Amino acid sequence: MPAAKPRTMPGVLELLPLDQVAFQGMLDTIRRNFERYGFLPVETPAMEFTDVLLTKSGGETERQVYFVQSTGSLEQGERPELALRFDLTVPLARYVAEHERELSFPFRRYQIQRVYRGERAQRGRFREFYQCDIDVIGKDHLSVRYDAELPAVIHSVFRELAIGPFTIQLNNRKLIRGCFEGLGIADPARQMAVLREVDKLDKRGAGAVRDTLTGTDYGIEPATVERIMRFVETRSRSHAQALEQLAALDSGSELQRQGVAELREVLTLVRAFGVPETAYALNLSIARGLDYYTGTVYETTLDDHPQVGSICSGGRYENLAGQYTSSHLPGVGISIGATRLYWQLREAGLIRTADSTVQALVTQMDEAELPRYLELATMLRNAGIATEVQLEPRKLARQFQYADRAGIRFVLVLGSDEIAKGTVTVKDLRKQDQYEVRREELAKALRVEIEQAVVMGAGTR
Amino acid sequence: MPAAKPRTMPGVLELLPLDQVAFQGMLDTIRRNFERYGFLPVETPAMEFTDVLLTKSGGETERQVYFVQSTGSLEQGERPELALRFDLTVPLARYVAEHERELSFPFRRYQIQRVYRGERAQRGRFREFYQCDIDVIGKDHLSVRYDAELPAVIHSVFRELAIGPFTIQLNNRKLIRGCFEGLGIADPARQMAVLREVDKLDKRGAGAVRDTLTGTDYGIEPATVERIMRFVETRSRSHAQALEQLAALDSGSELQRQGVAELREVLTLVRAFGVPETAYALNLSIARGLDYYTGTVYETTLDDHPQVGSICSGGRYENLAGQYTSSHLPGVGISIGATRLYWQLREAGLIRTADSTVQALVTQMDEAELPRYLELATMLRNAGIATEVQLEPRKLARQFQYADRAGIRFVLVLGSDEIAKGTVTVKDLRKQDQYEVRREELAKALRVEIEQAVVMGAGTR
Repeated sequence: MPAAKPRTMPGVLELLPLDQVAFQGMLDTIRRNFERYGFLPVETPAMEFTDVLLTKSGGETERQVYFVQSTGSLEQGERPELALRFDLTVPLARYVAEHERELSFPFRRYQIQRVYRGERAQRGRFREFYQCDIDVIGKDHLSVRYDAELPAVIHSVFRELAIGPFTIQLNNRKLIRGCFEGLGIADPARQMAVLREVDKLDKRGAGAVRDTLTGTDYGIEPATVERIMRFVETRSRSHAQALEQLAALDSGSELQRQGVAELREVLTLVRAFGVPETAYALNLSIARGLDYYTGTVYETTLDDHPQVGSICSGGRYENLAGQYTSSHLPGVGISIGATRLYWQLREAGLIRTADSTVQALVTQMDEAELPRYLELATMLRNAGIATEVQLEPRKLARQFQYADRAGIRFVLVLGSDEIAKGTVTVKDLRKQDQYEVRREELAKALRVEIEQAVVMGAGTR
Repeated sequence: MPAAKPRTMPGVLELLPLDQVAFQGMLDTIRRNFERYGFLPVETPAMEFTDVLLTKSGGETERQVYFVQSTGSLEQGERPELALRFDLTVPLARYVAEHERELSFPFRRYQIQRVYRGERAQRGRFREFYQCDIDVIGKDHLSVRYDAELPAVIHSVFRELAIGPFTIQLNNRKLIRGCFEGLGIADPARQMAVLREVDKLDKRGAGAVRDTLTGTDYGIEPATVERIMRFVETRSRSHAQALEQLAALDSGSELQRQGVAELREVLTLVRAFGVPETAYALNLSIARGLDYYTGTVYETTLDDHPQVGSICSGGRYENLAGQYTSSHLPGVGISIGATRLYWQLREAGLIRTADSTVQALVTQMDEAELPRYLELATMLRNAGIATEVQLEPRKLARQFQYADRAGIRFVLVLGSDEIAKGTVTVKDLRKQDQYEVRREELAKALRVEIEQAVVMGAGTR
């Protein structure tokens, strides 16, 4: 009698094998591009001490933390000492502060791991999900040039993921804050509140935001709101236009002019990094919710699927790890929420189930010839072709059916005819094609077919 | 003022970036070989419902579970509903039972994820560690031939990891149990107890085991103990010898003869799978602690480092998921504890810190030429070479020092001379070599060097 119903908790995305292949392919692409741009891997434990994890956060984040206790600690009614990480930024801060003397700066790290949030169960909200982060951390100082490198990485990742045209939207918090100060909104808390409203522009629409800002909560003069709106509605359609729009804003406070100068340098270098101008734009409404961004901020959206929202966000911060060290560690980073991205792309029909990682199945015609089948498989595996062998006797039709259902492309038949001739019959289930090749040429023939599929973007590698 | 001391919990292995590169290289090798043998990826959530996770286990395992609670649940004083997985076998059983109708059988899955155990803090004991598992699960039936496939995968993994000669040791629980029955030890609980003592043979030595078995706890006749000892001390030194030793045991109970027949088939096929006979052996003392193994059992040891213990273990079980489903799901699997393995290899001096994943650093000679440096980097990245660019001005000597410390092999210099000639100066820090190449031939030249390093087993890819 089964003792428990097999089930997973709500809010996790557990995938069937071929979907996992597709998802893993996405993570591999992200990792490959992070490495290509010279970022180094870091992994941190899923659990951190609660006093380390919760120094800064409060409110919403703390409410969503998962606490961890061993059996003994639980039985003794102790307060939990451990909790699961809710992002990769706090662990990064702890890592850099803890290992500061052993790291080279600027420290360029990537981290691809799962994070945990006790979210209310809701469609599209995950309690466990992958984040794929890169950050560059400076010691005392970090040039704004690094702010231009991250869009180049973002472009490289999403170009290779091939999920359609996308735009990396750029802004700078100094520019927004400078502009607001110029309009008489000088109090930082009030600036943040207006920023939060403005951040909703693309979601709620201009009318709703305008009403809120002139309403009783904010009570800003309609004329001032108009100027705020004109500012935040600024979007560039080309590199030249972005520079013109910035030139028009190059006045006012020191802060505003500094924001303009930084954005100009970033835009100029983004182009020098080889990012095509169709892939990036100024968007002066981008503010990012988090308080700790201080300069450049990024969001990335799919041109044909705006409803998906930002698929990669981040920005520049002044001091990564003030809660752990007195060293001054400025940085810039971005994050891709891979689980949510995968889920949304699948919902939008932009990704399909991948072909299997298994590329070839060696069928079994005659049990007595099993050693030959195994030898053939070994030959293919040594040539780097992922190969499964039919080990149990089964009707040939069922072996083909299995390969088809499992998404295996090449089915190999080694019957008495083929053995006599020194050949193998290849059935290509994708091309619906069949041919015979000499045994010693088989691996090469399959490699050619597999490489072609990669070039055409149809294969898993 | 820092609010908290940055630190990690005891019992986790957090690595510096270049060590992480080495560890990641190990995981990549394991994964590549799992895929090459036709295993499909599966990932499961770190958390499971406690009633699902703890159906079977008891005693030691349950004492070591980490329970998880959200803030709300904790505040309301509820019993935890969730816990972190302590292995990948229970989640596999739950996964197969939950998705049974959507999977193709035999189901061949690999899973490389972290597991959690509330172990007592102790050197070499980890509370969070990677397991790398493969299992083949049949529906109703699974041929013993699959038991022969797993040693082929183990051989492929450890050959490529290149950590020295190793031996996959094979035994069969039916053979041991049959032999014990023949010696009058028929009670299953008593068999298990003797097996547990025998399992300590390589650790405690023959004398200590003999004393325990003839002592008051067991009270077995010295003559019988001698026969047990002669049996469990059986080790083969060649394929032919293994078959001879089995032939000598092919008598006695039905169970014993069945064990001999299975082991003979497995050994014969392991050889047909292309595993050299130096890499496997009969070892009739191998029993594996866990009760659920029913047939073939494996352990793998490093010939030159026996103190490391088994680096890959597993076996055949009769029914994977009886606690969740009435379907009969026999299987065979192995597990590599990668974190512990990495730690032990490092302790034994068998692995060194890897070269960086960053392969080239484009230096900065003249700030005004930054766009050229970026263009060069883009060219290299498009050719698949992981490249970092020096973005901030810095003395050239310090740029070289940085590359050296960071383990970056190629340092590229593009001074006014090189720009005028259309060349790049390459400094190969590994070979202590320097040369000039034409700009358009740079990527190819570096690729050749990198591929050579891979062939010679010295590089990370």
